[in-house]
Amino acid sequence: MKNIRMVVSYVGTHYHGFQTQPIGNTVQDVLVQAIHVLTGEKVNIVASGRTDAGVHARGQVFNFITSSPIPIGRWALALNSRLPGDIAILKADEVPLDFHSSYSAKRKTYRYSIDTNKFADVFERDYRFHYPMPLRLSEMREALSKVVGKHDFTSFASQRSTKRSHVRTILEARIEQGEGKLDLFVTGDGFLYNMVRIIVGTLLWVGEGKLSVSDFERILEAKDRTAAGPTAMAHGLMLWEVSYDD
Amino acid sequence: MKNIRMVVSYVGTHYHGFQTQPIGNTVQDVLVQAIHVLTGEKVNIVASGRTDAGVHARGQVFNFITSSPIPIGRWALALNSRLPGDIAILKADEVPLDFHSSYSAKRKTYRYSIDTNKFADVFERDYRFHYPMPLRLSEMREALSKVVGKHDFTSFASQRSTKRSHVRTILEARIEQGEGKLDLFVTGDGFLYNMVRIIVGTLLWVGEGKLSVSDFERILEAKDRTAAGPTAMAHGLMLWEVSYDD
Repeated sequence: MKNIRMVVSYVGTHYHGFQTQPIGNTVQDVLVQAIHVLTGEKVNIVASGRTDAGVHARGQVFNFITSSPIPIGRWALALNSRLPGDIAILKADEVPLDFHSSYSAKRKTYRYSIDTNKFADVFERDYRFHYPMPLRLSEMREALSKVVGKHDFTSFASQRSTKRSHVRTILEARIEQGEGKLDLFVTGDGFLYNMVRIIVGTLLWVGEGKLSVSDFERILEAKDRTAAGPTAMAHGLMLWEVSYDD
Repeated sequence: MKNIRMVVSYVGTHYHGFQTQPIGNTVQDVLVQAIHVLTGEKVNIVASGRTDAGVHARGQVFNFITSSPIPIGRWALALNSRLPGDIAILKADEVPLDFHSSYSAKRKTYRYSIDTNKFADVFERDYRFHYPMPLRLSEMREALSKVVGKHDFTSFASQRSTKRSHVRTILEARIEQGEGKLDLFVTGDGFLYNMVRIIVGTLLWVGEGKLSVSDFERILEAKDRTAAGPTAMAHGLMLWEVSYDD
């Protein structure tokens, strides 16, 4: 019995999210099926967290228990040859039996990418949210800095959130400006359902001038989802990295 | 009567190339149809050149004669709202009636992009040729420098080329190295059928050590397609820019 951890990259466009659902066609289903073809085992996959339909991952992490004798150095190549082109295993290693991709995770980073071109970049249309309105970047940066620290993020959580506590700690949040794009990176000890997308939807209102930086602060303090802006489109979001202690 | 020039960006993945063909589903067909829906006219599109099935364009140029009264500043937005998400007009301007996108072109730049990661980058799989073998970059750069200048490029032209002269002048050729990728940029006064792809296919053999830099030079001098390497995959190629005198 081995506990194997993998880092997987996927394009979320054609999947109903990461986690197995009755409707089918999830990244988890495809991974379980590929491992089944490879080993004959029906493994139970534990991921660092779910991602929604259309959301991408550069470095999602999952683990599973297996009795397969396949050497650890062979897993990634063997699985990749059985996976579709929009899912790729980047790394595989063996971890202690008590390692759990979700409970053991220390930090997660998400990227939200915005296409600021007048006309959408056709090559990035599945990965960036096209938002051609002029944006006040310095106000957006100032507002974003307000989420850093330990806060109750109820205003930025989907009302469908079932978490008991909405307190999370954001360790870093920044906006990188590129040619025709803005990339927001947010790192925290955990995230609530739709949290990054609601922060971005609200920040875009700050960028457009519909909200001020102090409005943004008041929204955070309100602990009320209806005070915040809309949930930004799924396809701009990417689970960037999950960090563990090892 | 106006002669309108446009810069268009497209993802070539789902098209049978730029130019209208009996088999249908070309970028030109889609553009002509969108202009028809917009103006009621069946225009004749002249492009800077064709691109093959699967090849992309960041800045293809085409022009057409129209009697439409639509102001020049409105064309791009009006057409984009009638085009699919993988084709976008970036610019439109009015040019003299004798302007011809192909004959008037002074320089063209192509980019060929190679994914050098061990496992393919899922987000770039339609835009980069995955080539995970170790590559000798300095030898590739030295070999590539040999194509700069005026040469007979018969060795690097498809045997289906119907051009009378295979002499072309390459003005600049360089390789940019990024994280997990190589981008080759080649600028010339004109290109033969499959020329960039055959240069890249041969360069990759230099990179792998199957050919030396002097082998590459001898291939160029041989004026014989069978002396060169394979034609690199279409999806790594992008028509980057077309330049005119104005």
